[in-house]
Amino acid sequence: MQRLDIGRVILSENDRCALENGDLLAEKRLVCFNLISSPGSGKTSLLVRTIQALAGQVRIGVIEGDIQTDLDAQRIRATGAPAIQINTQGACHLSATQVNGALRQLPLDQLDLVFIENVGNLVCPGAFELGENGKIVVLSVAEGDDKPAKYPGIFAKARAMLVNKIDMLPTGAVDFDMDKAQHDARRLNSQLAVFPISARTGEGLDLWCRWLKDQVTQIRAAGR
Amino acid sequence: MQRLDIGRVILSENDRCALENGDLLAEKRLVCFNLISSPGSGKTSLLVRTIQALAGQVRIGVIEGDIQTDLDAQRIRATGAPAIQINTQGACHLSATQVNGALRQLPLDQLDLVFIENVGNLVCPGAFELGENGKIVVLSVAEGDDKPAKYPGIFAKARAMLVNKIDMLPTGAVDFDMDKAQHDARRLNSQLAVFPISARTGEGLDLWCRWLKDQVTQIRAAGR
Repeated sequence: MQRLDIGRVILSENDRCALENGDLLAEKRLVCFNLISSPGSGKTSLLVRTIQALAGQVRIGVIEGDIQTDLDAQRIRATGAPAIQINTQGACHLSATQVNGALRQLPLDQLDLVFIENVGNLVCPGAFELGENGKIVVLSVAEGDDKPAKYPGIFAKARAMLVNKIDMLPTGAVDFDMDKAQHDARRLNSQLAVFPISARTGEGLDLWCRWLKDQVTQIRAAGR
Repeated sequence: MQRLDIGRVILSENDRCALENGDLLAEKRLVCFNLISSPGSGKTSLLVRTIQALAGQVRIGVIEGDIQTDLDAQRIRATGAPAIQINTQGACHLSATQVNGALRQLPLDQLDLVFIENVGNLVCPGAFELGENGKIVVLSVAEGDDKPAKYPGIFAKARAMLVNKIDMLPTGAVDFDMDKAQHDARRLNSQLAVFPISARTGEGLDLWCRWLKDQVTQIRAAGR
């Protein structure tokens, strides 16, 4: 009897579609980042702030992944940026096929950068390629500085780590050792760019936005 | 060609083992709750506080699920309670088979209650029965009041919802509408018991611990 590794079959079908997404993005000269975090780390607030900060400089579209509701897409559309909501109906991550459908609904010719906001989950989304140029992990200080050590997969793969909600640090309401979190994450991934930010107050967003602009320029210049 | 629903096959193998776990727990007159939340919502801190508060009243053992590290089991053992660490090596939830192996390492004859602290993930763990008497969902106020609406699965299934980190509310560092979170969760699950708590300051833990003691008494009286 021939044995099939089902995990591999599902992944390879996803990977085939991810390559197709990558081709479509390259053809349109679009840069695409896949935003991954726990639920409630502040991905949507970060996107709203980033879109506002880069208005007139980088044209951003968003694909929103959620199990239920279109609350996040509504928040993005309120900025004027186009957003397509995907409801996974229970699934714990976005698939490349879902992203393909959403990409074809975005006005790609009028964009420079597409953010995919994945389902809030620090584990599963990291295992599914979507055709993106890179993954960005968001960790909020409320979650604790032990998360890179406890959930190493996504920190090892990400291009950048945003440490969000740093406005909570002076309140004393959280215990978070920034050096420890950075050290543990960089031990997994020496290339990782790290940005401590507050999507609430705007602190640190200037450095993040400058990095993002540079990434868009570099990736486009390299033709992906 | 015969078609197999692979999800169903994996689940049913898990369910078979979950029944076995349930039988073992019943035979030992043990109550078991499966603690589910996002990463960093405070499950381990809650367990430490609960074990301390119920010392001499309820004998508690813990099964710790993490992708990597035994940091959480170390914190539990520091209270004097027995803890078995499972490392899932990348998997996003505990399986009934893993829990079976851990149960057999705990001193079951010397316990009243076993907590399973699942991998930090608000989605996948809710789909895998472990043989427990009930699921308890922990939501921290830092994650936002929209989580019951956005991640309905576990809120619909849980026996209780603990809203943790309420000590953050007076700092103004978070926007969290307790009524909205409770309303959305109870719309999914009218039977849900709700406990606003702070595992950091101890606020609200008296009501939670009283409920827990009642649950242990009732479940044992009913012979599961």
